[in-house]
Amino acid sequence: MKSKKGPRVSQYAYPGLDRLIHERARLSLLTSLARYPRGLRFGDLKSLCALTDGNLSRHLQVLQEAGLVQIVRSFGRSRPQTTCRLTRNGYKRYAEYLSELEQVVRDAAGAVRERRDALASAKE
Amino acid sequence: MKSKKGPRVSQYAYPGLDRLIHERARLSLLTSLARYPRGLRFGDLKSLCALTDGNLSRHLQVLQEAGLVQIVRSFGRSRPQTTCRLTRNGYKRYAEYLSELEQVVRDAAGAVRERRDALASAKE
Repeated sequence: MKSKKGPRVSQYAYPGLDRLIHERARLSLLTSLARYPRGLRFGDLKSLCALTDGNLSRHLQVLQEAGLVQIVRSFGRSRPQTTCRLTRNGYKRYAEYLSELEQVVRDAAGAVRERRDALASAKE
Repeated sequence: MKSKKGPRVSQYAYPGLDRLIHERARLSLLTSLARYPRGLRFGDLKSLCALTDGNLSRHLQVLQEAGLVQIVRSFGRSRPQTTCRLTRNGYKRYAEYLSELEQVVRDAAGAVRERRDALASAKE
């Protein structure tokens, strides 16, 4: 294993990629909810994340049970409405996850850049 | 759903987050292999990604069957060695995945920043 800097044990393990958040549909949901701190209605969330009713319900339930998302049912204009928002803890865990994800992107972008440079210099 | 810019349908769906690559252990493996284009030995990969033998084998097999990773068995210094590297297609799909991941990070970082600004101005 050769490298200019030398690899570290667990260098690419990324333990901070919390599986609860990392799953694609849940990452999509949490990013939407982080963007709308006052919360989103079920229908809007479904549309923003391009999820089916069943998938949305299932993942919201997982996030609610873990305490990351709060779901409020109310009656607006004669029909029931479901509004979802991040809890304080959900926001905190999402922000922590984001730090690790940024590290993955830095590592990955570095790898891609090095590879392009190596290919370019091989062609010279 | 209120927003300054207005939300788009599927805005946070991230269809480019290929599940084959997005899974945490496989993302870890592929990032290591992207960083070492000449390949990595099984033991080094295990250490860099902090995976057990069983998990490493299982995920490598998935990636090999999908054509993203090439596994070469050879005999070096009397004992067999297993070397893994990204295929050309594996590299291409990893780079495509990375573009989408960068979009997630931009969206997420934007959401976190806006929330901090809103909290800060609420305190003023």
